[in-house]
Amino acid sequence: MTITRLAIIGLGLLGGSIGLAVREHAGAIATAGYDRDPRVREKARERGLVGTVCDNPADAVRDADLVVLCVPVGAMEEAAREIAGALSPHAIVSDVGSSKQSVAEALERALPGVCIIPAHPVAGTEQSGPEAGFASLFTNRWCILTPPDDAEEEAVAALSGFWTSLGARVEIMEAAHHDLVLAVTSHIPHLIAFTIVGTASDLEDVTRSEVIKYSAGGFRDFTRIAASDPVMWRDVFLSNRPAVLEMLGRFTEDLTALQRAIRSGDGEALHDLFSRTRAIRRAVIEEGQDDERPDFGREDHG
Amino acid sequence: MTITRLAIIGLGLLGGSIGLAVREHAGAIATAGYDRDPRVREKARERGLVGTVCDNPADAVRDADLVVLCVPVGAMEEAAREIAGALSPHAIVSDVGSSKQSVAEALERALPGVCIIPAHPVAGTEQSGPEAGFASLFTNRWCILTPPDDAEEEAVAALSGFWTSLGARVEIMEAAHHDLVLAVTSHIPHLIAFTIVGTASDLEDVTRSEVIKYSAGGFRDFTRIAASDPVMWRDVFLSNRPAVLEMLGRFTEDLTALQRAIRSGDGEALHDLFSRTRAIRRAVIEEGQDDERPDFGREDHG
Repeated sequence: MTITRLAIIGLGLLGGSIGLAVREHAGAIATAGYDRDPRVREKARERGLVGTVCDNPADAVRDADLVVLCVPVGAMEEAAREIAGALSPHAIVSDVGSSKQSVAEALERALPGVCIIPAHPVAGTEQSGPEAGFASLFTNRWCILTPPDDAEEEAVAALSGFWTSLGARVEIMEAAHHDLVLAVTSHIPHLIAFTIVGTASDLEDVTRSEVIKYSAGGFRDFTRIAASDPVMWRDVFLSNRPAVLEMLGRFTEDLTALQRAIRSGDGEALHDLFSRTRAIRRAVIEEGQDDERPDFGREDHG
Repeated sequence: MTITRLAIIGLGLLGGSIGLAVREHAGAIATAGYDRDPRVREKARERGLVGTVCDNPADAVRDADLVVLCVPVGAMEEAAREIAGALSPHAIVSDVGSSKQSVAEALERALPGVCIIPAHPVAGTEQSGPEAGFASLFTNRWCILTPPDDAEEEAVAALSGFWTSLGARVEIMEAAHHDLVLAVTSHIPHLIAFTIVGTASDLEDVTRSEVIKYSAGGFRDFTRIAASDPVMWRDVFLSNRPAVLEMLGRFTEDLTALQRAIRSGDGEALHDLFSRTRAIRRAVIEEGQDDERPDFGREDHG
């Protein structure tokens, strides 16, 4: 089967970027979209994020072979219920949520009998909304599909081909494993960034303006992640609770060990860890997952 | 007094950048430099990091009005002892270390009677060594001076003027306050980045290659900081121990509160924090301390 008509529900950073990427890389696919916020629909029309911006979700999904839900994971079930009656019988329903077990359950509850293949493109920026999307967001990024055991092979292949056509690389894994991997590579990094930025802004003996002025010492990196969409991230932590708590436990164990090394003056333990972590950076760059220029290639020096 | 002859001890990222910045922005100042590693001296000659690369520290500092020690904070005392006998009687000795109380004590022990004005330019990248420096590293960055109470005003003004001429903005504060502020804006961010990168590489149920492949979900940001120089950072944590432990305590308190919010499903607490932290990012950008483009302006999408 081939995707010829795509519906995108939710026209923020992810939904908008999918629409723009289809226009650029897969122009044969007709796109329709919907967002529950009328201002977002207006902006989506202005930017041409999809071919047709509809004023209700049913119109957007009618006749679509692929529907991609691009809403916060806590809003997936409601968004799915709104399209349930209008779906074509052969439609594949997918999503872009950052946690996969809870989304799979929500979609199965809302859409019994429908071909559901949850997915997660591991890509984004700290910005959100209909102005934030861009066509190359998925280029060279991984998109993880977590099809249920009884998923039709043809449908999985069609969704995989769709993401490949947008420039992404596709991997298939169990939803539970996805949730554990992403807890480490995405959810815990966000959680500790939100925390340290919050800690810094609550200090009484260091002013907020000092924190901002001297942020180039490292703190500013964390402020980028901590500027991410609050609703999206609230939902991620609540929906991937067991994996997040498990990985957070490991992180705090390791942090406590490092704290003890500092308190006891164990320079060798510190040096050993700091030398190991350097190698990970090199591997990330070699795998094409980050900019190799110093400081991410920032251009704020002059 | 005016700085006409500058000596730089240690020709890595910071020392090399000072040399290059002087050449570009303050060409009237004659520069000499020394590094204890002969390969670094060789590379420094190739790149022209300073006007004269000397083969011993005494030759580099002779006749200098300003000597800047650019070595890891744990190596400051030894570096200072090596130049003690060769300093001109009117020389100012300064440094670029990330912790200031311990450096001030080390320099006072090694150089009794010398005019010592510790300093810390809050700037850098994850790279190190004589190839890493560049002339614009200090442009629009803050340089914090922590002169002792009895410092001569003229000498403080001269050092301040020197940093201003390299494009930096200068602030003067107590060494103890500096150490607290930088614990928050630099040392703790580095500590938690080193920790999470270590945690991720030690997991048994998530492979190292998965961590790297899906690092664009947030983790890759932390790998940059965790690629910083191991010796430099070991020394920072050991030399600023009380402030680091104090701020680490606050961070872990806040993280524990967030962990409890996740466990109990308190979405409102999460949303409140995540909304507050967004404002800090805006302030950092408005203050000119980060690149406003999404994702730091990374160009790894194509």
